Amino acid sequence: MVDLEDLLDTEHVLIDTVENYIKAEEQKIDLLKRYVAIYQRQQKKAREDAQSYLSNPINAYTLVKRLTADWTQVEALVNTNMNADTLANISYVKQNMKFPTDEDLNGAAVALMRLQDTYRLDTSSLARGELNGVKYSAELSAADCFELGRQSYNNGDYYHTQLWMEEAGARFKREANETVDQSDILEYLAFSIYKQGNVALALDLTNKLLELTPTHSRALGNKVYYQDQLKGQENETVKRKGDDESENIPINGVKFYKPNYDDPFGKDLYEALCRGEVSTPVEVQAKLKCRYLSRDNPFLKLAPFKVEEAHLEPDLFIFHDVMSDKEIETIKRLAQPRQQLFKTNNNYV
Amino acid sequence: MVDLEDLLDTEHVLIDTVENYIKAEEQKIDLLKRYVAIYQRQQKKAREDAQSYLSNPINAYTLVKRLTADWTQVEALVNTNMNADTLANISYVKQNMKFPTDEDLNGAAVALMRLQDTYRLDTSSLARGELNGVKYSAELSAADCFELGRQSYNNGDYYHTQLWMEEAGARFKREANETVDQSDILEYLAFSIYKQGNVALALDLTNKLLELTPTHSRALGNKVYYQDQLKGQENETVKRKGDDESENIPINGVKFYKPNYDDPFGKDLYEALCRGEVSTPVEVQAKLKCRYLSRDNPFLKLAPFKVEEAHLEPDLFIFHDVMSDKEIETIKRLAQPRQQLFKTNNNYV
Repeated sequence: MVDLEDLLDTEHVLIDTVENYIKAEEQKIDLLKRYVAIYQRQQKKAREDAQSYLSNPINAYTLVKRLTADWTQVEALVNTNMNADTLANISYVKQNMKFPTDEDLNGAAVALMRLQDTYRLDTSSLARGELNGVKYSAELSAADCFELGRQSYNNGDYYHTQLWMEEAGARFKREANETVDQSDILEYLAFSIYKQGNVALALDLTNKLLELTPTHSRALGNKVYYQDQLKGQENETVKRKGDDESENIPINGVKFYKPNYDDPFGKDLYEALCRGEVSTPVEVQAKLKCRYLSRDNPFLKLAPFKVEEAHLEPDLFIFHDVMSDKEIETIKRLAQPRQQLFKTNNNYV
Repeated sequence: MVDLEDLLDTEHVLIDTVENYIKAEEQKIDLLKRYVAIYQRQQKKAREDAQSYLSNPINAYTLVKRLTADWTQVEALVNTNMNADTLANISYVKQNMKFPTDEDLNGAAVALMRLQDTYRLDTSSLARGELNGVKYSAELSAADCFELGRQSYNNGDYYHTQLWMEEAGARFKREANETVDQSDILEYLAFSIYKQGNVALALDLTNKLLELTPTHSRALGNKVYYQDQLKGQENETVKRKGDDESENIPINGVKFYKPNYDDPFGKDLYEALCRGEVSTPVEVQAKLKCRYLSRDNPFLKLAPFKVEEAHLEPDLFIFHDVMSDKEIETIKRLAQPRQQLFKTNNNYV
C-alpha cells in the first residue's frame, strides 16, 4: 500500500528518464538521417548517368568509402541501443522510490467501483470525471475504462466488467488515437455477459468480434461453446427461468445483471442507508435508543461517547461530540497528503 | 575486387534498409511521446494542487494505473530494440550482394593518388571535385580527405598522408556539420611530418593538438619523443643536412617532402612522359626506331604489330593499328559498366 503523493514524485522522475531517452534516440536518428541524406544525394547523381558517374575516380573513391569506412559508422549507429542507461535508471527508481503494485491497481479499481455502487454513480458520468454532475478530474480514456473492466474480471466481478467494457467500447469509438484494442473489449464483454447468463448476447458479441478479427482463436472456440450452450438452454428453458434471480437493468440495449452479493447485512440496504435514502418507519424509529458508552474505561466514565442508534440490522450508529472542530481540522490536515486509497470502507461509521 | 556498378545497387538496398529502420524508430519514439504527453498533462494538474488532485478517487485510480498497467507498456517500448531486423538485413546484403573490402578502399585511394601524381593534380582542386579545372564530381568532405590520408599512412606513404591531412584540416574549418575529429587530423599530420624529417614542425602540431585535447595520451608521449629527437638533431646538424635528399615544396607554409621512390625507371620522368611533357631531344629521337613485331606467331607473321619507339629508359612504345575503330567501340562498351577501379596501371601502354 503506497502513499499517493510519493507516487507523484516517482512519476515525475520516470517522465524525466523517458524524456532523456527520447532525446538520446532522436540524436541518434538525426545522425543516421544525415548519413542517409549524403548516401541518397550521391545515389541520385549516380542514377542519372551511372557510367559517367563511375568513370570519375573521385566518385569511385567516395562510393567505395561510403560502403567501407562510412558504412562501419552507420552500422555501428544502428547497432547502438540507447536504452541501457534508461532501463538501469528505471530499475533504480523501482527499487528506491515508492512504486505501486498490481494489487494497488486492483485496490484502486475496486475502491472506485465501491464508490460507484454506494453512491449509484452513472458509469458514463464517472468516466467523464464527474461526481454528482460536477467535473472534478480528467476524462477516462477507453484504456482506463478497459483496465477497470479487466480488474473486475480478475476479481470475478462480471457485473462491473460488463459496465466498464461497455463504457470502454463507447469511448473507443470516439477516440482519435485508439488507446485500446476493440477486439479485447469485445472479448471481455462477451465473456462477462455469458458468465451472467445471457448466452445469446455473448454469441452476438463474439460474432461481432470475429467480424473484426476473423482468426481470433479464442473467439472461434467460444463461438462453438456458446452455440452448444444455447442448444442446451433451449431444451431446458422452463427450468432455467425460475433459477434466474438476477435483477435486469437494460442500458443501451444491453441487459445488465446485477448479482446478489452473499452479504448478511444486505448490501443494497446498506448502500441506500449510506446515501441517506432510507427513511426509517416510525415503528422502527420508536425502538431506537440513545446511550452513553464508557466500556469500563476510566476516562470514558467521566466523558462517555454519546451514541445514537440510526438503524438496526444493519446497525448504523451516530457518535456525537467525539472530536472538537480543531481536532477534526488537524486530522483532515494530517490525512490529506498521505491519504491512502483503499480504506474507503473505514470511512463509513 | 568489385565492380562499381554492383556497388551502386548494394548502396541502394542498404539505404532502403536504414530508412526503414529510421521509420520504425520514429514510430516507436512517437508512441513514447504520446505516453509522455499524457503523463506530463496529469503531472502538471497534480502539481497545481496535489491534495485536491489526489483526493479525487478517479485521479487516484488513473495515477496508480499510469504507474502499473500503462508503465508496463512504456517500459516495454523503451526495452524494444527496433534494430534486430535491420541488422539481419544488413548481414544478408553483405553476404549476398557485392560489398567492398578495406583492401578495395585502399586500392581506390591509391588509384586516386597515383592519378594525382601522374597528372600533377592540385590536392585542393581534387578535393573540390575538379579535374583540370572542370568540376566533375561532388566535393570531398573533411572525412573523405582524412580517409585518403589515413590510407596513405597505412601504406607508409607519409608524403600523401601530409597532403591529404592538410586538406582535411582546411575543409574541417569550413564544415558546419563536422565530419571528422580535428585531433585525429593533427595527430596523423604531425606524425607524417615527423616521418619525413621535420621534427620541429611535428612538435608544433603536437602542441596544437594538446591545446585541443590536453589529455591526449599518444600526443603527450609523442611530444616528449619529438623534444628528445630535436635535442639529438642539434648535436648532429651538419651530418643530417647532407643525408636529406628530399625535394622541398613549400605549400601553405608547410614544407612538403616528396620522397624519392625506389624506382629503376625514374618515376618523375615516367609521369612526365605520360603527361606528354617531355619533348625528346633530337639526338635521342634520331636513335628511335619503328619495327614490326611478330614474335614467331603465324598470324602476326602475316599481320605484324606496327611498333614505334617513343622513348627509351623508361621504354615507351606506340602500337599502331592494333584495333579497328569498331573493335575499340566494342571494348569501350564492354568495359564501361563493369569498369574496374584498380587497374589504372594497365591503362598506361
